[in-house]
Amino acid sequence: MALTIGVDIGGTKVAAGVVDDDGEIVEHMLRPTPAREPDQVAATIAGVVKELAHGREIEAVGLGAAGFVDETRSLVRFAPNLAWREEPLREKVASLVGLPVVVENDANAMAWGEVRYGAGRGESHVVCITLGTGIGGGIVLDGNLYRGRWGMGAELGHMQVVPEGRPCGCDQRGCWEQYASGRALVRDAREIATAHPERAALMLELAGGTVDDIEGEEVTEAARKGDPAALEAFGLLADWLGQGMADMAAVLDPGCFIIGGGVSRAADLFIERARETFVRTLTGGGHRPVADIRLAELGASAGLVGAADLARLR
Amino acid sequence: MALTIGVDIGGTKVAAGVVDDDGEIVEHMLRPTPAREPDQVAATIAGVVKELAHGREIEAVGLGAAGFVDETRSLVRFAPNLAWREEPLREKVASLVGLPVVVENDANAMAWGEVRYGAGRGESHVVCITLGTGIGGGIVLDGNLYRGRWGMGAELGHMQVVPEGRPCGCDQRGCWEQYASGRALVRDAREIATAHPERAALMLELAGGTVDDIEGEEVTEAARKGDPAALEAFGLLADWLGQGMADMAAVLDPGCFIIGGGVSRAADLFIERARETFVRTLTGGGHRPVADIRLAELGASAGLVGAADLARLR
Amino acid sequence: MALTIGVDIGGTKVAAGVVDDDGEIVEHMLRPTPAREPDQVAATIAGVVKELAHGREIEAVGLGAAGFVDETRSLVRFAPNLAWREEPLREKVASLVGLPVVVENDANAMAWGEVRYGAGRGESHVVCITLGTGIGGGIVLDGNLYRGRWGMGAELGHMQVVPEGRPCGCDQRGCWEQYASGRALVRDAREIATAHPERAALMLELAGGTVDDIEGEEVTEAARKGDPAALEAFGLLADWLGQGMADMAAVLDPGCFIIGGGVSRAADLFIERARETFVRTLTGGGHRPVADIRLAELGASAGLVGAADLARLR
Amino acid sequence: MALTIGVDIGGTKVAAGVVDDDGEIVEHMLRPTPAREPDQVAATIAGVVKELAHGREIEAVGLGAAGFVDETRSLVRFAPNLAWREEPLREKVASLVGLPVVVENDANAMAWGEVRYGAGRGESHVVCITLGTGIGGGIVLDGNLYRGRWGMGAELGHMQVVPEGRPCGCDQRGCWEQYASGRALVRDAREIATAHPERAALMLELAGGTVDDIEGEEVTEAARKGDPAALEAFGLLADWLGQGMADMAAVLDPGCFIIGGGVSRAADLFIERARETFVRTLTGGGHRPVADIRLAELGASAGLVGAADLARLR
Repeated sequence: MALTIGVDIGGTKVAAGVVDDDGEIVEHMLRPTPAREPDQVAATIAGVVKELAHGREIEAVGLGAAGFVDETRSLVRFAPNLAWREEPLREKVASLVGLPVVVENDANAMAWGEVRYGAGRGESHVVCITLGTGIGGGIVLDGNLYRGRWGMGAELGHMQVVPEGRPCGCDQRGCWEQYASGRALVRDAREIATAHPERAALMLELAGGTVDDIEGEEVTEAARKGDPAALEAFGLLADWLGQGMADMAAVLDPGCFIIGGGVSRAADLFIERARETFVRTLTGGGHRPVADIRLAELGASAGLVGAADLARLR
Repeated sequence: MALTIGVDIGGTKVAAGVVDDDGEIVEHMLRPTPAREPDQVAATIAGVVKELAHGREIEAVGLGAAGFVDETRSLVRFAPNLAWREEPLREKVASLVGLPVVVENDANAMAWGEVRYGAGRGESHVVCITLGTGIGGGIVLDGNLYRGRWGMGAELGHMQVVPEGRPCGCDQRGCWEQYASGRALVRDAREIATAHPERAALMLELAGGTVDDIEGEEVTEAARKGDPAALEAFGLLADWLGQGMADMAAVLDPGCFIIGGGVSRAADLFIERARETFVRTLTGGGHRPVADIRLAELGASAGLVGAADLARLR
Repeated sequence: MALTIGVDIGGTKVAAGVVDDDGEIVEHMLRPTPAREPDQVAATIAGVVKELAHGREIEAVGLGAAGFVDETRSLVRFAPNLAWREEPLREKVASLVGLPVVVENDANAMAWGEVRYGAGRGESHVVCITLGTGIGGGIVLDGNLYRGRWGMGAELGHMQVVPEGRPCGCDQRGCWEQYASGRALVRDAREIATAHPERAALMLELAGGTVDDIEGEEVTEAARKGDPAALEAFGLLADWLGQGMADMAAVLDPGCFIIGGGVSRAADLFIERARETFVRTLTGGGHRPVADIRLAELGASAGLVGAADLARLR
Repeated sequence: MALTIGVDIGGTKVAAGVVDDDGEIVEHMLRPTPAREPDQVAATIAGVVKELAHGREIEAVGLGAAGFVDETRSLVRFAPNLAWREEPLREKVASLVGLPVVVENDANAMAWGEVRYGAGRGESHVVCITLGTGIGGGIVLDGNLYRGRWGMGAELGHMQVVPEGRPCGCDQRGCWEQYASGRALVRDAREIATAHPERAALMLELAGGTVDDIEGEEVTEAARKGDPAALEAFGLLADWLGQGMADMAAVLDPGCFIIGGGVSRAADLFIERARETFVRTLTGGGHRPVADIRLAELGASAGLVGAADLARLR
C-alpha cells in the first residue's frame, strides 16, 4: 500500500496528512502557518512532513497552495496571502525532506481530490467551483487535471460577468467572484437590508440590529428561517452561479460541476435555483445533454487528499 | 505518403480536398450544398469524396460541419443552417464511400488545421477564434483538440458578456458574438452612423447614403480611409475581443490565441487595440506570461485541412 | 372672435392654419420647406402667413420649430434639421408680415395644443411625450407651458436611462429616445429578427425577407397579427416608456401624461403594458395618486393649434 | 417687521426658529422628537411654537417634514421616519397654536430658503440637491416653489439611473440616490477598500483596520490626505452627481443648481469633477448656456428659514 503525504498550506494554518491509495487519510496534523517569511514556511512544512513520515515509507509529497503555481509545478509565482514571489517551493521542501515533491494550486488540488475520491468519481470532464470569500476553480478534462500553458488556468472567479462592474482585488472590475461568492452574498444581503430593513428584520436581529454586522452566518440562519431579504440575497447568488456555470459549459462542456467551499454548506438555500438558472441560460439547451451539478463530498480535506494523490501520480 | 480527404460543409457550398501529411492540398473541389434534405447532402458529400478519391489511395475522410457534433464524432445533434437533427452523418457517408469517416465541428477543424499547419505550429495550448457573422471557437489543450464531455465544447461565442444584453440566436442574451463579430461590427457602425451621420460621412457615401446599406465592406473601407464612425466601430470590436480573450485566459491560460475568419482580413484595424485591451484586462497581469495573439494563416482552407488531418489521426 | 395663425415648420414641409379661440382651424395650408437657406425659410413662412391673413383680422402669429428656442421666444439657437444657428426668426418674420410673432419649440407647441384643446383639457400638470423617430417633450406646469431658464427645458428624450448605452445624435450615450421611440422600436425588432428569424416570420415576410427592410410599419402590422418578435419589440418599447414616465413622475409629479407622435397610432400595442410598468416602477407607489396616461387627440395639427394659441396668449 | 416661525421636524429632533422678513433667525430652539406617536409629535411642535411666540406677534407657522406632503400643504400622506400616514398635521398644529399653518416637504423648504436668502438669491429656475444619507430635492421654477400636481414633485433621488441597479428603500432599483449620496460614497469606499486594501491604507487606518467601520468621515479625511481609494470613491460620487444634473437639465433647464446637505461639506473633494461631468454629459452642450453649480449657504437652518418664509407667503 503506497503512501504519500498531502499538505494544504493556508494563510493561517498548514494541514497535512498521510494518504493511502484509496484516498483515506491515515494520519492528520494541523500547524499554524508561521510569519510570512518564506524560509520559515518551508521549514514548517518540512517539519510536519518529517513528523508524519516518521516510521513510514512515503513515496512523495504534494503541496497545495493558494497562488499561481508554474507549469512545472515547482515554483509559486505569486501568492496573495503569503510572501511568495517566484518562490522555488518544490526545491526548498524537497531538499529539507529528502522526498520527491510536487506543488499545486490549492483549488486544483481540491478539484483533483473530489474527482478521484469524492463527488466526481468516474467523471472525465469536471469543473470544480469552490465558493469561499471568493471563487476558487479547478478543472479536470479528459481525466487529467488541467493546468494551462503556464499553470495559471482555472482562475474561474476572474471571468468578467458585468462590464464595468464591482471592483475586484485582481485589479479588474466585474469579476464573477464579486457576484457569486461568500463576500458577494454578504454584500448583497447588506444592501438589501439597508434599502429594506423591514424585509430583513430577522437578519438584522441576528446581527444585533447593525447592518454592518451581518455576516454569512446571519444571512444563512435568517434565510433558513424565511427572512425575505436573506432569501433574496441567496437568490442573487444562485442566479450568478447558474449563469457562470452556463458560461463555463459554453467553453468547456463538462459532464459535471462540483460545488464546494464554505458557502456550499448552505447549498440547500441556493443549489436548486442555481440549477434552474443554469439550465435556462445554457447555450444550445435542448440540443445537448445537461451537466450534473453536485456538492463536494470531501469537505476541508479535499485539498490535502488531492495533493497527496497528485504526488503519487507525479 | 498517406492521403486523406477533408470536407468542409457550409450552408451554401461543400469544399473538399485531398490533403497529404504535410498539410498540403493535393486536389481541391467545390460544390453547391444541395437543398436541405439530409440524404441529399450526404450523397453530395459522398460524390465529391469518390471523385477526389478516384485513382488514389485514401486512408480516411474528415468532415467538418457547423453544428453540435457528438463526442463519438459520428452524430450531428443539431445544425442551425442545415436540416440535421440527430443526423448519423458518419455512418451515412462511410457506407456510401467505403472509407473510415470522422465528423468534427467546423470551427474545431479550423483550429486543428491552424495548430498543425498554420499559425499555431508548435503550440500546445491554443484558443482559436473565428470572427465571421458570429464567433466560432476551437480549443487545443495539451496538444489535443478539445471537444468536451459531449462534443459541445468551445462554443466561445456564447459566453455571456453583458447581462440582459443583445438577443442571440442561441436563445440567450448578451452572448460574446453579439459584441465581437462581423455582425456586431456592422450593427455598431450603423448605430453610430444613425446617431452621428456627420462622423460617418465616408461610410455613408460608400453605402450610397443609406445607413441600412452599410455592410462589413463599407465599414472596413471607410475605416481604412479614416472615417471616425467606422474607426469607432472597430474600436468597440477590438475592446470586446480583447476582453473576451482575457476571460478565456482566466479559464484556459492558453499560450496563444489565433484570430481567423472573414473579419480577420481587416485585422490591421483592430488587432493592436485588441491586444492592448487583452493585456489591460487580463487577471493577474504582471504575475504571468502573456499569451501571444496571432492571425490565422491558412485562410478558408483551414477547416478542410484540419478535418483531413483529424481523419488521419482518428 | 379673435383669430391667430399657427405655423408648424418641419424639415420637409410648412403647415399653417388660421385658428379661432376655440382651437378650431378655420383655414389650413401646406407648403414644402424650401432649401435650407434661412432667409428663404422666413420668406416662405411669411408668404403662407400673408396668404392666410388675407381678408381677415389676425391678432398674432405663433411659429413652432424643431430646435432650441431661447427664453424670449425670439431666437432659434440651434435647429438640427434646418440651417438655423442663432437665427432671429421672430424679427425676420414679424418684419415681413407686420404682425406680432412668437416662436416656440414644436414639441412645446404640441403639448400646449393638447392641453388647451385636446387630451389634456382641464389638467394643470401635464407631461406630453411625442414618440416619433426620437422623443419630443413638452411640459405644462401649474397651467403654464414650461420653458426653463433659457427655453431649453423638456428635452425629455435626452435623459440618460442606460449608462454607456446606445449612442445618441446629441453626442451622449444611453438617452431615453434611443430606447423608447420609433427608431428604437425598429432597431429592437431587427435585432430580434436577426437573432431569431423563426419568431419573426411574419415580420420578415412583410419586409420581403430582408431584416434591413423592416420598418415601423412592418413591426406594427406583424405585431397586430401576433408575430412574436414584433410583440417583443413593442414590449421593450412599452417597458422603457413606462420606466421613463416613472422617472418623470419622480421629478415632476404630473397629473397626466399625454402620448402622441406617429408611434402612438400603434398605442393599442403598447399602452397597457407601458401603464403597468409605470405603476410598478413609480417611486412611492401606494402612497400617492397615480397620474393618468392618455393618448393625444389632435394628431398632426396639435403643433399648429398650440402655436396659434400661444400667439394669442403672448 | 413681520415675524413667522419655521419648524424643521426631523426623525430625532425638532428645530424651530422665529424668522424675520430678511430671513434672519431672531430666536432658535431645539427639542428631541418624541416617540413616534403622531399626537405627541404635534404636541411637541405646538409647545415649541408657543414658547417661541410668547410675547411676539407671529403671522404664521411653516412646518417642514420629511415625507410626502399633499398639494394643499395640509396632509402628510406618508413619512418614512415618523409614524405619519395621512396625518392632518396642519389642522392639528393650527388648532393647538391658534395660528395659520402650512406644511411643506423638508427638502422643498430647504430649497426655498436657499433661493430666498442663500445661494440662489435672484435666480428664477433652481434645482436644489441635498446630499445626505440619500438625496433630497427641491425645485424652484419661474420664481415659485414647485410642488407637482399632488405635492410629490422633486423626488430627484428616485429617478432611475441604472436599470436593475442597486436596491432602494423606495422599493425600486437603480435610483440616483443609490449612486450619488453619502450612503453611496461609503458603500463605494468600502467596496474599493475590500478589493484593494493596499490603495485604502489610510482610510483603513482611520477606521481601525476594519472595512465595515469606514464611514463618511473616514472617507473624507482619507481623501483629503490623498488616499487613492477614498479619492476614487469621491470620483464616482462626482460623476454620478454630474450625470444626474445633466439629466435634470434636459428636463428642467434650470439656471442654477444648489448642492447642500452633509456631504456638501466635503464639496472641495468632488464639486469640480461633478461640474466637468455635468458639462460633458449635458445634452445640446455647446448650443446652450450652462447652468451654474453652487454650494448651499444656509447650512442646517435652510429648512427652518424656508418654512418660515413659505408661511409668510402662504
